[in-house]
Amino acid sequence: MFYDLIKQKSKEVFPGFHGIFIHTERMTFAFWEIDKGSSLPAHNHMHEQVANVLEGEFELTIDGIVQVLTPGTIATIPSYSTHSGRALTACKILDVFSPVREDYK
Amino acid sequence: MFYDLIKQKSKEVFPGFHGIFIHTERMTFAFWEIDKGSSLPAHNHMHEQVANVLEGEFELTIDGIVQVLTPGTIATIPSYSTHSGRALTACKILDVFSPVREDYK
Repeated sequence: MFYDLIKQKSKEVFPGFHGIFIHTERMTFAFWEIDKGSSLPAHNHMHEQVANVLEGEFELTIDGIVQVLTPGTIATIPSYSTHSGRALTACKILDVFSPVREDYK
Repeated sequence: MFYDLIKQKSKEVFPGFHGIFIHTERMTFAFWEIDKGSSLPAHNHMHEQVANVLEGEFELTIDGIVQVLTPGTIATIPSYSTHSGRALTACKILDVFSPVREDYK
């Protein structure tokens, strides 16, 4: 029930996106370290997603609306909303998904 | 879909626990600022809860297991697990719940 993030091993799921994943019954927590300039093409999924930028600047586009996320800004991505993103600087981001991302297990 | 936490108004839900809440379809995000020495008595609820300490030291007890959470440590509290806590210092904590905490709306 207690996790020390520094002891977890990260996986590079997409180029430049290094994630540590914690799965509960209903949620997946993804702690990302993202290399500057890395980007994700537009995609969508049935999981709700909430992005919390902890460090850096990340440009996120949700359903055509572009916003630069910085620490203290939160983005909620509804189920099946199309989104894409780009790390303007090196970033740390916590993404929370519900239901669980079985594909990240 | 985009929130700036600094523009949101916090509510003191329990003495010393000042929270900003963001609700999605399946989750509630609670961004807490907790006064040093504030505590929560043992309780439980059907919602899963995941605690992320962002700043400070928070002593959390889950089903009798005591741990001091600091930045970089994560605690997952399963549905109906009894838990209590105490802020050893002033703290910032992000708690995520699923399903939505209707009582925090």
